[in-house]
Amino acid sequence: MTPTRTSARRPGGRSARVQADVYAAVGALVSEGHRDTMTVPQVAERAGVNPTSIYRRWGGVATLLEEVAVAALTGDEPMPDTGAIRGDLEAWAGIIVADITRPERIVYLRAMVSARQGTPGECPCWETRDEQAGQMLARAAERGEAVPTVAQVLNHVVAPLYHHVVFGLHADEAFAHSLVADVLAMAPARVLAH
Amino acid sequence: MTPTRTSARRPGGRSARVQADVYAAVGALVSEGHRDTMTVPQVAERAGVNPTSIYRRWGGVATLLEEVAVAALTGDEPMPDTGAIRGDLEAWAGIIVADITRPERIVYLRAMVSARQGTPGECPCWETRDEQAGQMLARAAERGEAVPTVAQVLNHVVAPLYHHVVFGLHADEAFAHSLVADVLAMAPARVLAH
Repeated sequence: MTPTRTSARRPGGRSARVQADVYAAVGALVSEGHRDTMTVPQVAERAGVNPTSIYRRWGGVATLLEEVAVAALTGDEPMPDTGAIRGDLEAWAGIIVADITRPERIVYLRAMVSARQGTPGECPCWETRDEQAGQMLARAAERGEAVPTVAQVLNHVVAPLYHHVVFGLHADEAFAHSLVADVLAMAPARVLAH
Repeated sequence: MTPTRTSARRPGGRSARVQADVYAAVGALVSEGHRDTMTVPQVAERAGVNPTSIYRRWGGVATLLEEVAVAALTGDEPMPDTGAIRGDLEAWAGIIVADITRPERIVYLRAMVSARQGTPGECPCWETRDEQAGQMLARAAERGEAVPTVAQVLNHVVAPLYHHVVFGLHADEAFAHSLVADVLAMAPARVLAH
Protein backbone atom coordinates (compact mmCIF):
# COMPACT_ATOMS: atom_id res chain seq x y z
CA MET A 1 0.00 0.00 0.00
CA THR A 2 2.96 2.33 -0.55
CA PRO A 3 1.75 5.42 -2.42
CA THR A 4 2.85 5.31 -6.04
CA ARG A 5 5.00 8.09 -7.42
CA THR A 6 3.96 7.76 -11.01
CA SER A 7 1.91 10.95 -11.07
CA ALA A 8 4.25 13.82 -11.81
CA ARG A 9 1.84 16.54 -10.70
CA ARG A 10 -0.02 15.76 -7.52
CA PRO A 11 -2.07 18.29 -5.65
CA GLY A 12 0.00 19.24 -2.64
CA GLY A 13 2.14 21.92 -1.06
CA ARG A 14 3.10 23.81 -4.19
CA SER A 15 -0.37 23.58 -5.65
CA ALA A 16 -1.91 24.90 -2.45
CA ARG A 17 0.57 27.79 -2.41
CA VAL A 18 -0.26 28.73 -5.99
CA GLN A 19 -3.95 28.71 -5.11
CA ALA A 20 -3.44 30.91 -2.06
CA ASP A 21 -1.28 33.37 -4.04
CA VAL A 22 -3.79 33.52 -6.89
CA TYR A 23 -6.72 34.02 -4.49
CA ALA A 24 -4.82 36.80 -2.73
CA ALA A 25 -4.02 38.46 -6.07
CA VAL A 26 -7.67 38.34 -7.12
CA GLY A 27 -8.67 39.77 -3.75
CA ALA A 28 -6.25 42.65 -4.16
CA LEU A 29 -7.39 43.41 -7.72
CA VAL A 30 -11.07 43.30 -6.76
CA SER A 31 -10.38 45.61 -3.87
CA GLU A 32 -8.63 48.07 -6.18
CA GLY A 33 -11.68 48.26 -8.42
CA HIS A 34 -10.49 45.93 -11.20
CA ARG A 35 -13.15 43.29 -10.70
CA ASP A 36 -14.63 43.74 -14.16
CA THR A 37 -11.45 44.41 -16.09
CA MET A 38 -8.84 42.05 -14.64
CA THR A 39 -7.00 39.71 -16.97
CA VAL A 40 -5.20 36.42 -16.39
CA PRO A 41 -1.78 38.02 -17.04
CA GLN A 42 -2.54 40.71 -14.43
CA VAL A 43 -3.54 38.10 -11.87
CA ALA A 44 -0.47 36.02 -12.75
CA GLU A 45 1.89 38.97 -12.39
CA ARG A 46 0.39 39.99 -9.05
CA ALA A 47 0.47 36.41 -7.78
CA GLY A 48 3.98 35.78 -9.05
CA VAL A 49 2.91 32.69 -11.01
CA ASN A 50 3.02 31.79 -14.68
CA PRO A 51 -0.16 32.75 -16.59
CA THR A 52 -0.15 29.23 -18.05
CA SER A 53 -0.71 27.81 -14.57
CA ILE A 54 -3.85 29.90 -14.25
CA TYR A 55 -5.19 29.04 -17.70
CA ARG A 56 -4.56 25.36 -17.08
CA ARG A 57 -6.22 25.30 -13.68
CA TRP A 58 -9.07 27.77 -14.02
CA GLY A 59 -9.49 28.32 -17.77
CA GLY A 60 -9.90 32.06 -17.41
CA VAL A 61 -10.80 34.98 -15.22
CA ALA A 62 -14.52 34.26 -15.15
CA THR A 63 -14.12 30.83 -13.59
CA LEU A 64 -11.47 32.11 -11.24
CA LEU A 65 -13.62 34.99 -10.02
CA GLU A 66 -16.53 32.64 -9.65
CA GLU A 67 -14.52 30.26 -7.53
CA VAL A 68 -12.66 32.82 -5.47
CA ALA A 69 -14.89 35.74 -4.90
CA VAL A 70 -18.44 35.04 -5.78
CA ALA A 71 -19.56 32.07 -3.67
CA ALA A 72 -20.96 33.71 -0.60
CA LEU A 73 -20.71 37.33 -1.67
CA THR A 74 -23.26 37.61 -4.45
CA GLY A 75 -26.26 36.27 -2.64
CA ASP A 76 -27.25 34.15 -5.64
CA GLU A 77 -28.16 31.36 -3.27
CA PRO A 78 -31.66 31.63 -1.77
CA MET A 79 -31.72 33.49 1.54
CA PRO A 80 -32.85 31.59 4.65
CA ASP A 81 -36.61 31.80 5.15
CA THR A 82 -37.44 30.06 8.42
CA GLY A 83 -40.55 32.10 9.23
CA ALA A 84 -38.91 34.01 12.12
CA ILE A 85 -36.21 36.66 12.16
CA ARG A 86 -34.13 34.81 14.75
CA GLY A 87 -34.00 31.67 12.63
CA ASP A 88 -33.26 33.63 9.47
CA LEU A 89 -30.43 35.63 11.04
CA GLU A 90 -28.90 32.59 12.74
CA ALA A 91 -28.91 30.60 9.50
CA TRP A 92 -27.52 33.54 7.53
CA ALA A 93 -24.79 34.36 10.07
CA GLY A 94 -23.91 30.65 10.17
CA ILE A 95 -23.48 30.58 6.39
CA ILE A 96 -21.30 33.68 6.49
CA VAL A 97 -19.02 32.45 9.27
CA ALA A 98 -18.62 29.03 7.66
CA ASP A 99 -17.66 30.73 4.42
CA ILE A 100 -15.27 33.40 5.66
CA THR A 101 -13.36 31.11 8.01
CA ARG A 102 -12.29 28.83 5.13
CA PRO A 103 -8.50 29.25 4.81
CA GLU A 104 -8.67 30.44 1.20
CA ARG A 105 -11.34 33.00 2.08
CA ILE A 106 -9.24 34.32 4.96
CA VAL A 107 -6.34 34.81 2.56
CA TYR A 108 -8.65 36.57 0.12
CA LEU A 109 -10.15 38.89 2.74
CA ARG A 110 -6.76 39.86 4.17
CA ALA A 111 -5.51 40.61 0.66
CA MET A 112 -8.58 42.80 0.10
CA VAL A 113 -7.86 44.71 3.30
CA SER A 114 -4.21 45.07 2.44
CA ALA A 115 -5.02 46.48 -1.00
CA ARG A 116 -7.48 49.09 0.24
CA GLN A 117 -6.29 52.68 -0.12
CA GLY A 118 -7.65 55.38 2.15
CA THR A 119 -11.36 55.33 2.97
CA PRO A 120 -13.39 54.84 -0.20
CA GLY A 121 -16.55 54.50 1.90
CA GLU A 122 -17.79 51.32 0.28
CA CYS A 123 -16.76 47.69 0.12
CA PRO A 124 -18.09 44.87 -2.10
CA CYS A 125 -18.86 42.43 0.74
CA TRP A 126 -20.65 45.08 2.74
CA GLU A 127 -23.06 46.07 -0.01
CA THR A 128 -24.11 42.48 -0.64
CA ARG A 129 -24.68 41.92 3.06
CA ASP A 130 -26.74 45.12 3.19
CA GLU A 131 -29.13 43.80 0.52
CA GLN A 132 -29.37 40.38 2.13
CA ALA A 133 -30.13 41.76 5.60
CA GLY A 134 -32.67 44.16 4.10
CA GLN A 135 -34.63 41.30 2.54
CA MET A 136 -34.85 39.31 5.77
CA LEU A 137 -35.75 42.30 7.93
CA ALA A 138 -38.45 43.50 5.50
CA ARG A 139 -40.09 40.06 5.54
CA ALA A 140 -39.97 40.00 9.36
CA ALA A 141 -41.44 43.49 9.65
CA GLU A 142 -44.29 42.43 7.34
CA ARG A 143 -44.97 39.54 9.71
CA GLY A 144 -45.20 42.08 12.55
CA GLU A 145 -41.96 41.08 14.28
CA ALA A 146 -39.95 43.69 16.20
CA VAL A 147 -36.73 43.98 14.24
CA PRO A 148 -33.43 45.82 14.51
CA THR A 149 -32.41 48.09 11.64
CA VAL A 150 -30.38 46.90 8.66
CA ALA A 151 -27.48 49.05 9.90
CA GLN A 152 -27.62 47.35 13.29
CA VAL A 153 -27.51 43.89 11.73
CA LEU A 154 -24.54 44.91 9.59
CA ASN A 155 -22.65 46.61 12.41
CA HIS A 156 -23.35 44.03 15.10
CA VAL A 157 -23.41 40.71 13.22
CA VAL A 158 -21.50 41.12 9.95
CA ALA A 159 -18.80 43.55 11.10
CA PRO A 160 -17.69 41.51 14.16
CA LEU A 161 -17.53 38.33 12.05
CA TYR A 162 -15.30 39.91 9.40
CA HIS A 163 -13.30 41.72 12.10
CA HIS A 164 -12.55 38.47 13.90
CA VAL A 165 -11.55 36.68 10.71
CA VAL A 166 -9.17 39.31 9.35
CA PHE A 167 -7.54 40.02 12.73
CA GLY A 168 -7.10 36.32 13.46
CA LEU A 169 -9.54 35.95 16.36
CA HIS A 170 -11.69 32.83 16.62
CA ALA A 171 -15.11 32.89 14.98
CA ASP A 172 -17.52 29.98 14.73
CA GLU A 173 -21.22 29.27 14.53
CA ALA A 174 -21.73 29.71 18.29
CA PHE A 175 -20.10 33.15 18.09
CA ALA A 176 -22.30 34.06 15.10
CA HIS A 177 -25.43 33.01 17.00
CA SER A 178 -24.40 35.04 20.07
CA LEU A 179 -24.10 38.13 17.85
CA VAL A 180 -27.60 37.49 16.50
CA ALA A 181 -28.96 37.21 20.06
CA ASP A 182 -27.30 40.52 20.91
CA VAL A 183 -28.68 42.40 17.93
CA LEU A 184 -32.18 41.04 18.55
CA ALA A 185 -31.96 42.38 22.11
CA MET A 186 -31.82 45.86 20.57
CA ALA A 187 -35.10 45.48 18.71
CA PRO A 188 -37.71 45.56 21.49
CA ALA A 189 -35.98 48.48 23.21
CA ARG A 190 -36.25 50.48 19.99
CA VAL A 191 -39.92 49.68 19.61
CA LEU A 192 -40.59 50.88 23.16
CA ALA A 193 -38.42 53.96 22.82
CA HIS A 194 -39.90 55.35 19.60
CA MET B 1 6.35 85.28 -0.04
CA THR B 2 7.63 82.61 -2.40
CA PRO B 3 8.61 79.52 -0.37
CA THR B 4 12.36 79.30 -0.08
CA ARG B 5 14.15 76.25 -1.41
CA THR B 6 17.19 76.52 0.77
CA SER B 7 16.27 73.57 2.97
CA ALA B 8 17.53 70.44 1.26
CA ARG B 9 15.30 68.07 3.23
CA ARG B 10 11.76 69.30 3.72
CA PRO B 11 8.98 67.11 4.98
CA GLY B 12 6.94 66.22 1.92
CA GLY B 13 5.96 63.49 -0.49
CA ARG B 14 9.01 61.27 -0.14
CA SER B 15 9.18 61.75 3.60
CA ALA B 16 5.52 60.85 3.99
CA ARG B 17 6.02 57.72 1.88
CA VAL B 18 8.97 56.62 3.99
CA GLN B 19 6.91 57.12 7.12
CA ALA B 20 3.99 55.12 5.73
CA ASP B 21 6.30 52.29 4.61
CA VAL B 22 8.06 52.20 7.97
CA TYR B 23 4.79 52.23 9.90
CA ALA B 24 3.49 49.39 7.73
CA ALA B 25 6.68 47.40 8.29
CA VAL B 26 6.42 47.84 12.05
CA GLY B 27 2.78 46.80 11.91
CA ALA B 28 3.69 43.65 10.02
CA LEU B 29 6.52 42.75 12.39
CA VAL B 30 4.38 43.35 15.49
CA SER B 31 1.66 41.19 14.01
CA GLU B 32 4.15 38.39 13.37
CA GLY B 33 5.16 38.40 17.03
CA HIS B 34 8.43 40.35 16.70
CA ARG B 35 7.32 43.30 18.80
CA ASP B 36 10.00 42.77 21.43
CA THR B 37 12.83 41.60 19.20
CA MET B 38 12.64 43.74 16.08
CA THR B 39 15.72 45.70 15.01
CA VAL B 40 16.13 48.79 12.87
CA PRO B 41 17.74 46.79 10.03
CA GLN B 42 14.75 44.39 10.04
CA VAL B 43 12.30 47.28 9.86
CA ALA B 44 14.40 48.93 7.14
CA GLU B 45 14.55 45.79 5.03
CA ARG B 46 10.82 45.17 5.33
CA ALA B 47 10.04 48.80 4.53
CA GLY B 48 12.52 48.97 1.66
CA VAL B 49 14.32 51.98 3.13
CA ASN B 50 17.88 52.60 4.24
CA PRO B 51 18.48 51.86 7.95
CA THR B 52 20.21 55.24 8.19
CA SER B 53 16.92 56.97 7.37
CA ILE B 54 15.31 55.27 10.33
CA TYR B 55 18.16 56.00 12.75
CA ARG B 56 18.18 59.65 11.67
CA ARG B 57 14.46 60.14 11.99
CA TRP B 58 13.52 57.96 14.95
CA GLY B 59 16.80 57.22 16.73
CA GLY B 60 15.94 53.58 17.25
CA VAL B 61 13.28 50.94 17.55
CA ALA B 62 12.01 52.09 20.94
CA THR B 63 11.05 55.56 19.74
CA LEU B 64 9.64 54.16 16.54
CA LEU B 65 7.46 51.64 18.35
CA GLU B 66 6.34 54.30 20.76
CA GLU B 67 5.31 56.59 17.95
CA VAL B 68 3.76 53.99 15.68
CA ALA B 69 2.17 51.40 17.81
CA VAL B 70 1.83 52.43 21.36
CA ALA B 71 -0.23 55.63 21.45
CA ALA B 72 -3.76 54.32 21.78
CA LEU B 73 -3.01 50.64 22.20
CA THR B 74 -1.36 50.49 25.58
CA GLY B 75 -3.97 52.28 27.61
CA ASP B 76 -1.31 54.26 29.46
CA GLU B 77 -3.51 57.33 29.25
CA PRO B 78 -6.16 57.59 32.00
CA MET B 79 -9.45 56.01 31.02
CA PRO B 80 -12.53 58.25 30.82
CA ASP B 81 -14.32 58.52 34.15
CA THR B 82 -17.46 60.59 33.63
CA GLY B 83 -19.53 58.98 36.38
CA ALA B 84 -21.85 57.12 33.99
CA ILE B 85 -21.26 54.19 31.67
CA ARG B 86 -22.74 55.98 28.66
CA GLY B 87 -20.38 58.92 29.05
CA ASP B 88 -17.39 56.65 29.63
CA LEU B 89 -18.10 54.47 26.61
CA GLU B 90 -18.81 57.44 24.34
CA ALA B 91 -15.57 59.17 25.35
CA TRP B 92 -13.59 55.95 24.99
CA ALA B 93 -15.09 55.03 21.60
CA GLY B 94 -14.47 58.60 20.45
CA ILE B 95 -10.79 58.34 21.40
CA ILE B 96 -10.48 55.02 19.57
CA VAL B 97 -12.13 56.19 16.36
CA ALA B 98 -10.12 59.43 16.30
CA ASP B 99 -6.96 57.38 16.69
CA ILE B 100 -7.56 54.55 14.24
CA THR B 101 -8.84 56.79 11.44
CA ARG B 102 -5.55 58.70 11.29
CA PRO B 103 -3.97 57.85 7.91
CA GLU B 104 -0.80 56.41 9.44
CA ARG B 105 -2.83 54.25 11.83
CA ILE B 106 -4.93 52.91 8.95
CA VAL B 107 -1.74 51.92 7.13
CA TYR B 108 -0.47 50.25 10.30
CA LEU B 109 -3.69 48.33 10.95
CA ARG B 110 -3.94 47.08 7.37
CA ALA B 111 -0.33 45.93 7.50
CA MET B 112 -1.12 44.06 10.73
CA VAL B 113 -4.06 42.33 9.07
CA SER B 114 -2.04 41.52 6.01
CA ALA B 115 0.73 39.94 8.10
CA ARG B 116 -1.59 37.72 10.14
CA GLN B 117 -1.23 34.01 9.44
CA GLY B 118 -4.12 31.67 10.10
CA THR B 119 -6.17 32.19 13.25
CA PRO B 120 -3.85 32.66 16.24
CA GLY B 121 -6.87 33.51 18.41
CA GLU B 122 -5.44 36.69 19.90
CA CYS B 123 -4.51 40.15 18.70
CA PRO B 124 -2.61 42.93 20.51
CA CYS B 125 -5.24 45.65 20.02
CA TRP B 126 -8.03 43.38 21.17
CA GLU B 127 -6.41 42.47 24.48
CA THR B 128 -5.78 46.09 25.41
CA ARG B 129 -9.37 46.99 24.58
CA ASP B 130 -10.57 44.07 26.69
CA GLU B 131 -8.77 45.42 29.77
CA GLN B 132 -9.97 48.96 29.16
CA ALA B 133 -13.62 47.95 28.74
CA GLY B 134 -13.37 45.72 31.81
CA GLN B 135 -12.27 48.66 33.99
CA MET B 136 -15.14 50.92 32.90
CA LEU B 137 -17.79 48.23 33.20
CA ALA B 138 -16.60 47.16 36.65
CA ARG B 139 -16.82 50.75 37.89
CA ALA B 140 -20.33 51.10 36.42
CA ALA B 141 -21.50 47.84 37.95
CA GLU B 142 -20.22 49.02 41.33
CA ARG B 143 -22.34 52.15 40.91
CA GLY B 144 -25.34 49.87 40.31
CA GLU B 145 -25.74 50.65 36.61
CA ALA B 146 -27.12 48.00 34.25
CA VAL B 147 -24.21 47.19 31.98
CA PRO B 148 -23.52 45.01 28.96
CA THR B 149 -20.76 42.41 29.21
CA VAL B 150 -17.14 43.11 28.29
CA ALA B 151 -17.53 40.76 25.31
CA GLN B 152 -20.55 42.72 24.09
CA VAL B 153 -18.67 46.00 24.29
CA LEU B 154 -15.75 44.50 22.37
CA ASN B 155 -17.90 42.83 19.73
CA HIS B 156 -20.37 45.66 19.21
CA VAL B 157 -18.26 48.80 19.69
CA VAL B 158 -14.60 47.95 19.12
CA ALA B 159 -14.99 45.32 16.37
CA PRO B 160 -17.23 47.45 14.10
CA LEU B 161 -14.86 50.43 14.45
CA TYR B 162 -11.80 48.41 13.46
CA HIS B 163 -13.81 46.60 10.77
CA HIS B 164 -14.87 49.87 9.16
CA VAL B 165 -11.37 51.28 9.24
CA VAL B 166 -9.56 48.32 7.71
CA PHE B 167 -12.22 47.67 5.04
CA GLY B 168 -12.32 51.36 4.08
CA LEU B 169 -15.83 52.21 5.29
CA HIS B 170 -16.47 55.56 6.95
CA ALA B 171 -16.15 55.75 10.72
CA ASP B 172 -16.41 58.89 12.83
CA GLU B 173 -17.45 60.00 16.30
CA ALA B 174 -21.17 59.92 15.47
CA PHE B 175 -20.80 56.31 14.29
CA ALA B 176 -18.89 55.42 17.47
CA HIS B 177 -21.62 56.96 19.62
CA SER B 178 -24.34 55.06 17.73
CA LEU B 179 -22.52 51.81 18.49
CA VAL B 180 -22.42 52.73 22.18
CA ALA B 181 -26.17 53.45 22.14
CA ASP B 182 -26.75 50.04 20.53
CA VAL B 183 -24.67 48.12 23.04
CA LEU B 184 -26.31 49.90 25.97
CA ALA B 185 -29.71 48.84 24.60
CA MET B 186 -28.62 45.25 25.30
CA ALA B 187 -28.01 45.88 28.98
CA PRO B 188 -31.52 46.44 30.39
CA ALA B 189 -32.93 43.51 28.43
CA ARG B 190 -30.29 41.30 30.03
CA VAL B 191 -31.16 42.53 33.49
CA LEU B 192 -34.85 41.77 32.94
CA ALA B 193 -34.20 38.41 31.32
CA HIS B 194 -31.89 37.00 33.97
